[in-house]
This record gives sequence, structure tokens and C-alpha cells, in this order.
Amino acid sequence: MEKKLNMRQLQHKATLEAIRSAVDKMVDTVGFDAMTIRDICKEVDITVGTFYHYFSSKNELLKDRYIRSNEHFQTFYDENLASMDEIEALRLFFEHYFAYSSTRVYQLYKRFMQVRIDEYEKWAETHPDRIRQIILEIITSGQKKGTIRTDRSAEDMAEFINMLLQGFTTAYVTYDREAPGRTGIIEIITECIDSLRA
Amino acid sequence: MEKKLNMRQLQHKATLEAIRSAVDKMVDTVGFDAMTIRDICKEVDITVGTFYHYFSSKNELLKDRYIRSNEHFQTFYDENLASMDEIEALRLFFEHYFAYSSTRVYQLYKRFMQVRIDEYEKWAETHPDRIRQIILEIITSGQKKGTIRTDRSAEDMAEFINMLLQGFTTAYVTYDREAPGRTGIIEIITECIDSLRA
Repeated sequence: MEKKLNMRQLQHKATLEAIRSAVDKMVDTVGFDAMTIRDICKEVDITVGTFYHYFSSKNELLKDRYIRSNEHFQTFYDENLASMDEIEALRLFFEHYFAYSSTRVYQLYKRFMQVRIDEYEKWAETHPDRIRQIILEIITSGQKKGTIRTDRSAEDMAEFINMLLQGFTTAYVTYDREAPGRTGIIEIITECIDSLRA
Repeated sequence: MEKKLNMRQLQHKATLEAIRSAVDKMVDTVGFDAMTIRDICKEVDITVGTFYHYFSSKNELLKDRYIRSNEHFQTFYDENLASMDEIEALRLFFEHYFAYSSTRVYQLYKRFMQVRIDEYEKWAETHPDRIRQIILEIITSGQKKGTIRTDRSAEDMAEFINMLLQGFTTAYVTYDREAPGRTGIIEIITECIDSLRA
């Protein structure tokens, strides 16, 4: 599926990746709120004008994180889950989501959630939420193959799983950062997922 | 437990309630972000100085909502759930939380969630989160009476329920406002709660 990129496109992609790395690094050291666009440019060694060619504001960096996370979970699904028992796929998806979310830099994730609450609808218009779609795809496929219950609608089960994911994230950024990942809690969630088996 | 208030305290309480009503009303008509402190004062017929005697900023109004919601759920628990079968109590608590959250003015709730993510730790320091405590109390009591499983820790089960509540709220303010309250989803959640029965 990969198209061959010309030199200009390759340069564009390299600069984008350099900005992304710099942001990830500076969020960790300086913090998202304290970090300025000028700082980022200094780190990447580009002009502010070049930065604005990629992102029109700091908040756009958060949208970019949304897009990257979509891509990340799509790849994870394609490479690991696509042809697996569906209940097992849901479990692994959840586990991976936990691990992915808990290693994001805490302060960035906090700001991300806040901006997401405001701008999600706008983001999703151009970049549909892959996480929600993947969950629905797994469940629909499981219903067809007979691994997942059909006495409930795929949409309701998918939304339920999605609420669990959102609950994890919100608990993580609002309260105790350790709690949501506790083994006991993951076991309870796993039981809930297992209860969707046909 | 109610203490008798003197005239001055009664006046204080009346003004506080008047401000709260005005805010609730104006959030609905004007919106939280557009509403100014001056507007609120005009509505209540108090000076700006008086307002600042009660709240030091607009964000303090969101903290006040947190405190009111604590009080609301405490009363709901005391009056309806305190001596009930614990699984039934968890179900009803959830249902009530759904109803309570979905009728809050949407835009206010959105802003509330955002500020909560930032300031929850500060709020909870002076006003511990009653919702989380009530859930833990119900579960602990159920474990003692033998209505709730003891092969899982009360803390893990409570945090799980709390994640479900948070997930509901976040899904509500981020995506489709109708989805989280769908009957099918509530039935799935009820099944999960039922699975905590001993």
C-alpha cells in the first residue's frame, strides 16, 4: 500500500517526524504548557515559519497526537488482532490501550484530554476515530463467526467497551495514576469482556 | 444534624442559592464561556464585590458544582441506598448517576470535565470525593454481609465502578450525547455490576 515518496515529500515527512520527536521530548522536560513554539523550532533547527507550515497552533499538536494514535492502533490491529478470536482480540486491544495510555507523558495527556473534550467533533470529521471503529469491527466480526453474543447489538457492546477505555483514561488523568492499571482492575474488566462471549 | 442558622447565616445561604440558580439558568441561555460575572450579578441583583465574597473566579463556580454534586449523591445514598442489598444499591447508584449527569447542561458539563481534570486534586483536598467513597462503602459493606465477592479487593471493584462512571461522563461530553444512556448499554453495565455478587 505504501506509495513511493519523492525527495520533497521525504523531506516533509522527515521534518514532521523531527517536530514530533522534539515535542515529545520537550513535553517531558519543559511541560506542554510552558513549551513555546519558538523552543520547538530551536530544538528542531527550523524557522517559526516552517513550523507553521506543519501546525497552525500548539493545540494542533494535540490533534496530531490524536491522528498518530489512530494510526498506531490501526497498525496494532492489522498486525496482531485481525484474524484472532474476537474476545481475545478485545482483551488484547484493551491491554494495549492501557499500556499505550499509561506511558504517554502525564501532563501532555491531561491537556490532550481537555482539548479533546472540546475539539473531538472537529478532529473526527476529517480523521474518524479508529479506536471506536476497530472495536465495532471486532465485535461485528465476532457476531458473524459466532464468538460474540448476538442478544445484544454490536453498537451497544462497542460503546460499552469504548466507555471502559474512556473511563480508564479519565481516571488516569484525574485521580490516582497507578490505580487504573492495577492487576485486580484489569482482571475485572477482562471478566466483563469475557461476558460478551457467545 | 442540621444546625440552626442565625439571620446573617440565613442571608448568606440565600444569596449563595440565588447565585447558584442564576448560574444554572444563564449557563443554559448564555453558555458558560460567554456568561460574565457582571451578568450574574445583574441577574441576582448583587454587586460584583458581593459576588467575590462567595466565589473568587468563574472556575470556582465549577468547584462549587463539584461540592453540590458531592452533597447531592451523599443525600441520595443516605435516603435511598444505605440499608439496601448492596448490588441493588450499586445498580441504583449508577442509574441515578446516569440520570443526574445527562440532565446537566451539556456545555457546562463539558467545561466542568475540563477544569476537573486540571483541578480535581485541589478540590478533593478540601472536599473529598463522596461518589468514590460511597461506592467503596457500599462494596465494603456488601463484602461484610456476604452479598459481594471477596475474591477481589473492595478497592479494585470500587475503582472499576468509578471508571465506568467516568467513562460514561467522558463519552457523554466527547461523543454522541445519546449513546451512553442507551438501554442496551445500561443492561451490559448492569450485568457487569451483577457479576460482583458473591
